[in-house]
Amino acid sequence: MTEVTEVAARLDALEKRLGIAEDELAIIRLVASYGPLVDSGSPDLAPDLLAEDGVYDVSYGRMTGPAAFSALLKDPEHLNAVKSGIAHVMGLPWVRVDGDRAVAINCTQIYLRKDGEYAIFRIAQNVWKLERRPQGWKIIERTNRLIGEGDDARALLEAAI
Amino acid sequence: MTEVTEVAARLDALEKRLGIAEDELAIIRLVASYGPLVDSGSPDLAPDLLAEDGVYDVSYGRMTGPAAFSALLKDPEHLNAVKSGIAHVMGLPWVRVDGDRAVAINCTQIYLRKDGEYAIFRIAQNVWKLERRPQGWKIIERTNRLIGEGDDARALLEAAI
Amino acid sequence: MTEVTEVAARLDALEKRLGIAEDELAIIRLVASYGPLVDSGSPDLAPDLLAEDGVYDVSYGRMTGPAAFSALLKDPEHLNAVKSGIAHVMGLPWVRVDGDRAVAINCTQIYLRKDGEYAIFRIAQNVWKLERRPQGWKIIERTNRLIGEGDDARALLEAAI
Repeated sequence: MTEVTEVAARLDALEKRLGIAEDELAIIRLVASYGPLVDSGSPDLAPDLLAEDGVYDVSYGRMTGPAAFSALLKDPEHLNAVKSGIAHVMGLPWVRVDGDRAVAINCTQIYLRKDGEYAIFRIAQNVWKLERRPQGWKIIERTNRLIGEGDDARALLEAAI
Repeated sequence: MTEVTEVAARLDALEKRLGIAEDELAIIRLVASYGPLVDSGSPDLAPDLLAEDGVYDVSYGRMTGPAAFSALLKDPEHLNAVKSGIAHVMGLPWVRVDGDRAVAINCTQIYLRKDGEYAIFRIAQNVWKLERRPQGWKIIERTNRLIGEGDDARALLEAAI
Repeated sequence: MTEVTEVAARLDALEKRLGIAEDELAIIRLVASYGPLVDSGSPDLAPDLLAEDGVYDVSYGRMTGPAAFSALLKDPEHLNAVKSGIAHVMGLPWVRVDGDRAVAINCTQIYLRKDGEYAIFRIAQNVWKLERRPQGWKIIERTNRLIGEGDDARALLEAAI
């Protein structure tokens, strides 16, 4: 029956397209959640965005898995920054979804409050590689490079584009 | 008829899922509109985002309803800032929709231009509680806390997560 | 047959609504891509977001078409900024889609790294007029005005709201 086939095809197409839009929104949400989760001071919430085998590669080191990332958030220097006032601001992510994988590129800005004044602490380019896992989208690899440290940040963007 | 039932179920599911995605986009749009509406200098546009019974709770006071918020935007200090150059930049909101209610968390950055130089005026964490009203999504309560003023901003995030 | 007509009407409505949500996401993606495309140092990628007849109107000039914009990105001053460290951060865009046209309003922040310190280089209000073209959404006109240069930035916002 032609009508039934046509209806099924339109439903299939809609479900597929909507799934992609939902994935894009889920990844925007994941990136957006990172800032508040870290700034809340909890050492466990932001690491949970990382897959068990996920890597967080920052200029000062490379960590694998949520536990290693949690340890970083328990560092006295980070805890002091949370206490005196810090904001991890997530720049608008450029999200590209491809099936069960996705890449998001954004620029993160970290601000501190010091002696009543606001200061820029770090400006970094970020490439987030994500994968759909049973619990939802997870970070497989996040690479973060400060601007103005040689060619690192620019090269990171170029490789990801 | 099985086919008809199946088609109806798929349509129902699609309409529900799409509605949630549309709500999420509507709330991103609402938060995004706040900056330009305030920076345009109009004292009435941004307050219209607030429900009649909506509360705007800032570190220096707590206002209820659009009229009270409009009064703030007519304050000479605010008008001078608009004149000399101000930008209310809305950080990426982390939006969670739950039926006719939603919560968005973001960090707002306010910049000023002073003697040709740019300065950071305020960095604040924000929790926006929203509700679907006959005219669309409206702010029921927005709480804004500067970073580095005791534990206020961090505690606000923790309570909302 | 009533059922068939009803199913077709629901499918039509879903396809239309989903198309609008997809357009909004596509425009968020386009704006988000601008920062990394410029910061990668490539003089051709960001200009490709502009329509052939598209205009980029900045405080220091008005360019028409991708080639004129590419020339700007090959300017030694810009290349030096890319080399020493620059980040074009796209503020959250307020997107309004109307059929094959759309308007996005956002605030852009440009940061530099200078002698190890971060500095704010430019804070500007932006109005992006977009159109659906055969290759997808393209910028027809982007106007960018620095805050605190007379009334330009505020007036730009007011006209676009």
